[in-house]
Amino acid sequence: MSRIDFQTSPDAYKHWRIEPDGEVARLVMDVDETAGLFDGYELKLNSYDLGVDIELADAIQRLRFEYPQVKTVVLASGKDKVFCAGANIRMLGGSAHSHKVNFCKFTNETRNSMEEASAESGQTYLCAVSGACAGGGYELALACDHIMLTDDGSSTVALPEVPLLAVLPGTGGLTRVTDKRKVRRDLADVFCSLEEGIRGKKAVDWRLVDEVAPASKFADAVSTRARELAARSDRPSDGEGVKLNPLTKTITENAIAYSTVSVELDRGSRIATINITGPDTPPPGEIAAAESLGDQFWPLRLARELDDALLEIRFNELEMAVVQFKSAGDPTLVLAHDDFMDSNSEHWLMRELLLYWRRVLKRVDLTSRTLAVMAEPGSCFAGTLAELLFAADRSYMADGQFEGDNRPEATIALGPLNFGAYPMSNGITRLETRFLGEPEAVAAAKAKQGDALDASAASELGLVTFAFDDIDWEDEVRIFLEERASFSPDALTGMEANLRFAGPETMETRIFGRLTAWQNWIFQRPNAVGADGALQRYGSGKRADFNMERV
Amino acid sequence: MSRIDFQTSPDAYKHWRIEPDGEVARLVMDVDETAGLFDGYELKLNSYDLGVDIELADAIQRLRFEYPQVKTVVLASGKDKVFCAGANIRMLGGSAHSHKVNFCKFTNETRNSMEEASAESGQTYLCAVSGACAGGGYELALACDHIMLTDDGSSTVALPEVPLLAVLPGTGGLTRVTDKRKVRRDLADVFCSLEEGIRGKKAVDWRLVDEVAPASKFADAVSTRARELAARSDRPSDGEGVKLNPLTKTITENAIAYSTVSVELDRGSRIATINITGPDTPPPGEIAAAESLGDQFWPLRLARELDDALLEIRFNELEMAVVQFKSAGDPTLVLAHDDFMDSNSEHWLMRELLLYWRRVLKRVDLTSRTLAVMAEPGSCFAGTLAELLFAADRSYMADGQFEGDNRPEATIALGPLNFGAYPMSNGITRLETRFLGEPEAVAAAKAKQGDALDASAASELGLVTFAFDDIDWEDEVRIFLEERASFSPDALTGMEANLRFAGPETMETRIFGRLTAWQNWIFQRPNAVGADGALQRYGSGKRADFNMERV
Repeated sequence: MSRIDFQTSPDAYKHWRIEPDGEVARLVMDVDETAGLFDGYELKLNSYDLGVDIELADAIQRLRFEYPQVKTVVLASGKDKVFCAGANIRMLGGSAHSHKVNFCKFTNETRNSMEEASAESGQTYLCAVSGACAGGGYELALACDHIMLTDDGSSTVALPEVPLLAVLPGTGGLTRVTDKRKVRRDLADVFCSLEEGIRGKKAVDWRLVDEVAPASKFADAVSTRARELAARSDRPSDGEGVKLNPLTKTITENAIAYSTVSVELDRGSRIATINITGPDTPPPGEIAAAESLGDQFWPLRLARELDDALLEIRFNELEMAVVQFKSAGDPTLVLAHDDFMDSNSEHWLMRELLLYWRRVLKRVDLTSRTLAVMAEPGSCFAGTLAELLFAADRSYMADGQFEGDNRPEATIALGPLNFGAYPMSNGITRLETRFLGEPEAVAAAKAKQGDALDASAASELGLVTFAFDDIDWEDEVRIFLEERASFSPDALTGMEANLRFAGPETMETRIFGRLTAWQNWIFQRPNAVGADGALQRYGSGKRADFNMERV
Repeated sequence: MSRIDFQTSPDAYKHWRIEPDGEVARLVMDVDETAGLFDGYELKLNSYDLGVDIELADAIQRLRFEYPQVKTVVLASGKDKVFCAGANIRMLGGSAHSHKVNFCKFTNETRNSMEEASAESGQTYLCAVSGACAGGGYELALACDHIMLTDDGSSTVALPEVPLLAVLPGTGGLTRVTDKRKVRRDLADVFCSLEEGIRGKKAVDWRLVDEVAPASKFADAVSTRARELAARSDRPSDGEGVKLNPLTKTITENAIAYSTVSVELDRGSRIATINITGPDTPPPGEIAAAESLGDQFWPLRLARELDDALLEIRFNELEMAVVQFKSAGDPTLVLAHDDFMDSNSEHWLMRELLLYWRRVLKRVDLTSRTLAVMAEPGSCFAGTLAELLFAADRSYMADGQFEGDNRPEATIALGPLNFGAYPMSNGITRLETRFLGEPEAVAAAKAKQGDALDASAASELGLVTFAFDDIDWEDEVRIFLEERASFSPDALTGMEANLRFAGPETMETRIFGRLTAWQNWIFQRPNAVGADGALQRYGSGKRADFNMERV
């Protein structure tokens, strides 16, 4: 499989159009069926593959940063008779298990970013459904805050995966039906068993959509509702957007270099190292100066590069067992940037930036590789970057200066953003999750906010897993990395998925924890993916041949 | 595989001893290594298979009903140097996927019943660990309210599944470590990666056990702690136990007959019908009379028979796609029994009975088959039995009298026990779960408590999925059952597991939803179960050969 690139921009889109019109923008899905990411399938009926979703993720991101004045996004189809037929079945049938799983995770993250825009950013998604809206198509609608359905006798919503394809709706559908839309569970059972879906008023009665309008009045009704939703927004009407320019990125055989991030790929040891470079200047004094820095403002530049690096490793480097984070820089400059973002958090751009960091850090949490932080001499795991210590499965901190190493002794530091700005999928902070058993430890850490904590202070506060001095460091780290690379990747995936998300559950954790796990299970069952399974036989005219044992 | 029998009694135990001593009882695990349930493995080092766990479940049940005076149960090993080595690896390696999954579910249900005894029934489990306590052995300890570990340099607790076997601890271990014991997540990562486990004071510091005591003082310390826990109990010191006699049960080729339950197995259509017979007399006037009825008191008799029928279908009838519940009897007599239990719920025996029904109804919820209720003329889905309507994926109710059928028209009725006595695993009632989207519907249903609700009243209140009259009934039911039996069993398992448990999450739902799904996924990955996988190669001296792609 060729390298997948997550960087795109509207002038290169093949499947989507952003049509801004004052405070409302239409986001139009108009899939080019000949432009699939891989060979072997056509994207008929507005069905999608990863390439379509990469453009969608890009569009959502640009709507937030480049269009501060847009307060409602109307998601609509560019095709006449179909809204969206969901993920392309031939693509799924032809994909490796790992690609199906990675694809579903990315599409889930993208849907969550739509919900976050509605909930946190004053940019509400309204879905305007005309024509068939099935499977992943309806899951796209479910990710919107408000769903309108044309009442024309033929427009329907449906989740036909179980009866038609022997798999689950893989992008949060089942969870959003019961937990977001709160459809009665027996009606949900009926709905999810119906190939043909549900239309008209019944779709409203069953809570599957919010309202219906006849075809002749649909455009007006959508427009009216879009303005109403816009009126509730606190986004600026006159903000100047920040243009997201192409990343500086150089890919070589065993490395990817960005401006603030570099990735080293050690294929023999199966270790990917993400090196982060701290800022080399203090933040500007005024918010206007940060705005004019645009996408070169250090925290935004780093967030974009780190986000891309994570996706590169997830999709293009399947055999990397461990992702280890290292950093180099001045912790006080990192904290100064945190203070700047925190004290300007009411400004739309800083709000977007903090929300983006929240999403990037969630992307870290959900990356199915062992995550480790190596806080070495000269590192700058402070504030926002200290979140990586708590996202990691383990963190190792160097104790004192190392012989022949003139970098300063490693310290870590906490800042205001460690105590609420970046909740995990479970709705609480990484520190709160870490200290579920001793909540008083969060307060103890907070009391040291701003301090440069050396290895013994960090250990004492429970902020790192291990601290080793010059004598032990190399062996301890090596043994851990070797051991981890020797374990079964599947068992590690399951173990980490369970240990990382203790505490409260949210719709997000249910989607990534429960639903994803069941979907992954089904995605390797012969009834779905075997030669006689439903995904392979779909469209062949032959019914799937099932093993009828219930498990 | 031969038919598995879940009925046993202490005189037939091969692996456990109940040693009552006043208000404390010792429950001693002393596995007979030659007495595995199947051929092909020896139960060395107090390792267990389903047969060992069937006895444990029976012992727990008897401790609650037959020993009202027992307030603390001390779980201990009968072997010298080992507490328990966990589930037997050769047994797991030789089992079909469906058996592994069913086995783990049953062991989870049994562990939950221990926690319920501690939390609800005044019978606290104390685990006294001497020797190695690994994998499922530590999971057994985790299910106890209090864990004591001998501090002798060799007694350890461990979850070595990931490093040793490439699977997850399958009986709630990961979830209980993070959510019950609240072990810090990076320390949990270290602990779950350590083959050799953790001992002594460090096990206390990491929150893995509650206390340690040196070997010379261990027995005294356990005894003291057991008396302390007993002192907190509200169980009667002078209660007379209820003996659980062998069930009346006749198995024929396509049926199982009990006294109040009969199971019909239609192998062609893949439908199992559970017929429930209502009581034929009112409840006694006095609690003493119910006590002297003992295990013949109708609600207890039915609960035991229904519980056994569910396990029979789960383990011995893997191809049954649908379990449909039918009933026959007088709804007012069912409600009268509910009223009796409710008004005597302070009495230890009625409390045990209500808790047992709670567990049986949870066993229904967790049965991985399509669940349907057919409320036909003459049925008695009232009160406790009405819970089946809400546990089912769908319920069909007959509307009016049927031609040529002289049974009374179907009615359903709610009673006091539908509004709190039987929470699901998610901690809320089935009606609250059903009406997450319209909580006012619970109050509307409560207002009709005691009324005989015909099909139109029940539909109006949202208590049944469909109501059909004489003309449509047969076709509609037939089409549903045929359709359901044609779907992929795996997709149905995943769909139902997601739709049944909306709303809040608890440790139980996390174990059955999230952890189980990941475990099931791993249980069919070649890295675990393939010819070169870790489960097959365990003990062979050859390391497993892993596919190193991370998913």
